[in-house]
Amino acid sequence: MPIDPQDALVVGVDYGTLSGRAVVVRVHDGAELGSAVHAYRHGVLDRTLPATGRALPPEWALQVPSDYVDVLRDAVPRALEAAGADPALVIGVGTDFTACTMVPTTADGTPLSELPAFAENPHAYVKLWRHHAAQGQADRINELARKREEPWLPRYGGLISSEWEFAKGLQLLEEAPEVYEAMDHWVEAADWIIWQLTGQYVRNACSAGYKGIRQDGGYPSPDFLRELHPGFERFVADKLDHPIGALGDRAGGLSAEAAAWTGLPEGIAVAVGNVDAHVTAPAANAVEPGQMVAIMGTSTCHVLSGADLREVPGMCGVVDGGIVPGLWGYEAGQSGVGDIFGWFVENCVPPSYHRLAVDRGITVHELLTELAEAQEIGEHGLVALDWHSGNRSVLVDHELSGLVVGQTLATRAEDTYRALIEATAFGTRRIIDAFAESGVPVTELIVAGGLLRNTFLMRVYADVTGLPLSVIGSEQGPALGSAIHAAVAAGAYPDIRSAAAAMGSVRRGAYLPVPANVEAYQHLYADYVELHDHFGRGGNDVMHRLKARKRAVTATEGKS
Amino acid sequence: MPIDPQDALVVGVDYGTLSGRAVVVRVHDGAELGSAVHAYRHGVLDRTLPATGRALPPEWALQVPSDYVDVLRDAVPRALEAAGADPALVIGVGTDFTACTMVPTTADGTPLSELPAFAENPHAYVKLWRHHAAQGQADRINELARKREEPWLPRYGGLISSEWEFAKGLQLLEEAPEVYEAMDHWVEAADWIIWQLTGQYVRNACSAGYKGIRQDGGYPSPDFLRELHPGFERFVADKLDHPIGALGDRAGGLSAEAAAWTGLPEGIAVAVGNVDAHVTAPAANAVEPGQMVAIMGTSTCHVLSGADLREVPGMCGVVDGGIVPGLWGYEAGQSGVGDIFGWFVENCVPPSYHRLAVDRGITVHELLTELAEAQEIGEHGLVALDWHSGNRSVLVDHELSGLVVGQTLATRAEDTYRALIEATAFGTRRIIDAFAESGVPVTELIVAGGLLRNTFLMRVYADVTGLPLSVIGSEQGPALGSAIHAAVAAGAYPDIRSAAAAMGSVRRGAYLPVPANVEAYQHLYADYVELHDHFGRGGNDVMHRLKARKRAVTATEGKS
Repeated sequence: MPIDPQDALVVGVDYGTLSGRAVVVRVHDGAELGSAVHAYRHGVLDRTLPATGRALPPEWALQVPSDYVDVLRDAVPRALEAAGADPALVIGVGTDFTACTMVPTTADGTPLSELPAFAENPHAYVKLWRHHAAQGQADRINELARKREEPWLPRYGGLISSEWEFAKGLQLLEEAPEVYEAMDHWVEAADWIIWQLTGQYVRNACSAGYKGIRQDGGYPSPDFLRELHPGFERFVADKLDHPIGALGDRAGGLSAEAAAWTGLPEGIAVAVGNVDAHVTAPAANAVEPGQMVAIMGTSTCHVLSGADLREVPGMCGVVDGGIVPGLWGYEAGQSGVGDIFGWFVENCVPPSYHRLAVDRGITVHELLTELAEAQEIGEHGLVALDWHSGNRSVLVDHELSGLVVGQTLATRAEDTYRALIEATAFGTRRIIDAFAESGVPVTELIVAGGLLRNTFLMRVYADVTGLPLSVIGSEQGPALGSAIHAAVAAGAYPDIRSAAAAMGSVRRGAYLPVPANVEAYQHLYADYVELHDHFGRGGNDVMHRLKARKRAVTATEGKS
Repeated sequence: MPIDPQDALVVGVDYGTLSGRAVVVRVHDGAELGSAVHAYRHGVLDRTLPATGRALPPEWALQVPSDYVDVLRDAVPRALEAAGADPALVIGVGTDFTACTMVPTTADGTPLSELPAFAENPHAYVKLWRHHAAQGQADRINELARKREEPWLPRYGGLISSEWEFAKGLQLLEEAPEVYEAMDHWVEAADWIIWQLTGQYVRNACSAGYKGIRQDGGYPSPDFLRELHPGFERFVADKLDHPIGALGDRAGGLSAEAAAWTGLPEGIAVAVGNVDAHVTAPAANAVEPGQMVAIMGTSTCHVLSGADLREVPGMCGVVDGGIVPGLWGYEAGQSGVGDIFGWFVENCVPPSYHRLAVDRGITVHELLTELAEAQEIGEHGLVALDWHSGNRSVLVDHELSGLVVGQTLATRAEDTYRALIEATAFGTRRIIDAFAESGVPVTELIVAGGLLRNTFLMRVYADVTGLPLSVIGSEQGPALGSAIHAAVAAGAYPDIRSAAAAMGSVRRGAYLPVPANVEAYQHLYADYVELHDHFGRGGNDVMHRLKARKRAVTATEGKS
């Protein structure tokens, strides 16, 4: 019996850093009927391997692939139950994933960590996006690419990240050649999960482009790879290259095994994999040129579509069809945002504030926000750099660090808290300015992610950027975005744009810039930019020196 | 009956910011037999006047002169009692005072604030050293002195402070001409108290030189003063100039009235007044060239004698006989030291540290020190500027402010605490380097003041400066120094140098620099100097801009 279009449902699954979330969504209007979250049993492995307790070096971050499958087994059925939904009405499944998160597999997709021979080898595990131990490899890739003037380099703002496929792949070759040798495919987790759902490996255009240096249908040349390392020459040909699926396309039908895991009908459409940030754009119905979506949580990811190809210094990447087919998808990012505020509250706020917050039944964040909001612009006399986790855009330098100028004996916690909030807003404005300077104007800022709940923060962003600020309507943007992709893959809509218009959710112009505040922030922003360029562009390399010395001291301590 | 030299006693009285301390000292060996403290009843007036509650503007800091007399009435007898001393054995009294703290008086030394006509006029009260409301006047003095190339300007490191006699005097003329007109003498509190003790006004060489721009026997010319303000032309002649007493000289005999206050014998020697920092040098037996005494408390004052006159950029002053007659006395300073650590503990340390300190029965300072001490040099990855209260030496700029570079999400309270300790040590080294570069080498650092109790801090200072570090033996250094001056004034010793050798107290070489640490700190110090020069010498004037904007915003708020 055919399903009435008014009743049809889709399931979106969002794979985050610590858990996966499934949401059941009505196809015709995007209503979110029910959801469930499954926390990964192994979480992030950044200290030891699970089986033997073997210690991991600093900067490592691994995961266990079976945790991802458990999300399908647990969260999807529970979401259906929470929705009171008849599984028979579900016409498609879509997923999104953290990126670049890489799984080394055999020819049939078995993760190498599941082979007994490799269970104790950390290189056989999933390397999570925030595995940062391939910086040396990334540095060499960038140096060589600059030297050879590789045409793909400007597509990534001039720098390839240590988080991405090539740096992590080269680290694998160099540090665990036996694992590299045994690996048939170097697979984005975003695609590995589709492989589990459909039995077929389809490489999605989004992560292949942003994380896999796929540009204009090709990859870095064998010649380039050989110059990097003789054994790396056939990396693309042997480990990486694979047919590409466009976003919103059907990767395949749900396999019998995956149908059993999830309780969904066998054979329904499974959408091509996607990345969590990028899939949020349709969820916020923000897929037109000029609409920058900022997904603000511990860090911020900015995605934006444009009609034309432009090379923006310091962007994370530009990919043809990287967000929606037919437009160039731009990505930029700030390495630290919410985690800076979290660090500050955890480490830099005295007891009296904690007591007052408890007494008033609010969080310390809420208390500091209230006190900060009562101030005039510039009243705290501070300016900060938001680089506690380094700087992604536009400087692309993980070795940078935080800075606060202007503290006096009268400086209180709310002053510095406000300065840090403003610093992250200045960071976003610096990115927007870089896009505008390169011919990719931004006309609207659409915020998704947990930080949108802080209305003061939103007002600061509107005033600092001078842009109308919209906020996503859904509290589970990526999962909704994945569900939108599922609906397109199932043929319920002709394309992502029309599905986003029907199913996406946004409060348009929720915060409008106040002209006097925009003017007042110009001066503070100019101070920010001067510090940004001085410490970020070589005027004073002290941040690099401090990190190098810290590493040297820590290494010496380890040996003694 | 003549007093047996073995039994002779002296009394030293140290006038601090909040209280006065009297100590009874044995002349032949400097043993401190007893002491007592008297807190000023009115403390520091920085918000309202006592009588009427009249509000004071920001940056004001006043005191009430009768509070000083109360110290003589209360603390001196109690110190004698605590010492179990026969007052008849006391042969002299010495005092030291905060500076530049100014009392406007009538011809007989009556403070104008004690005249009914002026009781409600804030300008009639004592202007405490940290009254900072004459900055505008100081700026004009400096600008004009630079323009005219006044020869005395380099004697003060190129800048006259808003705290000093001329800036405060000009403020008085301009803001309260009726008080200025009624004033016969503009008297250092250090000399006013001697006037109360002896009935005679003697202007001491130390504060006249450091705070009163007295150089080579003269003052700024009437011509200069007229150009500053027509009514200021006769400031020196009418209000300031007065016979000078050399340090260690007898100012006079104890008056009958003061003998009644104190319980001391009438007619005993009263030493010429002195400044708290400078009098500490003999107390630490550190009056030879090369011996820099650092009095480390909320701020740090550095005093050092030299055989020759040199003009050191950014020093506070150089005065002939400013510490001991016959040598040039140099002074430098750091505006904020202990108060930065205090601010940090009060405002930037999370509850868990406070709880742990309570559980362990130690202070948060002690806990942070312990955690900081366990680190290697450079392990925290931070460098800070210690300018939370501005910079006195060598930049002489109150508009500067604090800076921290290098914070990450892994930065903990002890990291920043250690960085701030190191920053103050770098600040001291910068001063020592400036002296050395100008031909005034420093060969030993002698620490006095409350911070010497922190042994980790002492080690950091030894390692950062590369100098052997001695610590004063007395816990009441200035009072002991005043007692030493009393002994000299009474003729028990021929000069300050010999009295210091007999009565002073020091643990010589208590902390020696560790060569490996000295080497490791070279790099961090180089980073400090680069930031110091960039933010302090015009590379980036952001600190000035931030303060100006803060003032503008606060002013606007006040109006609304």
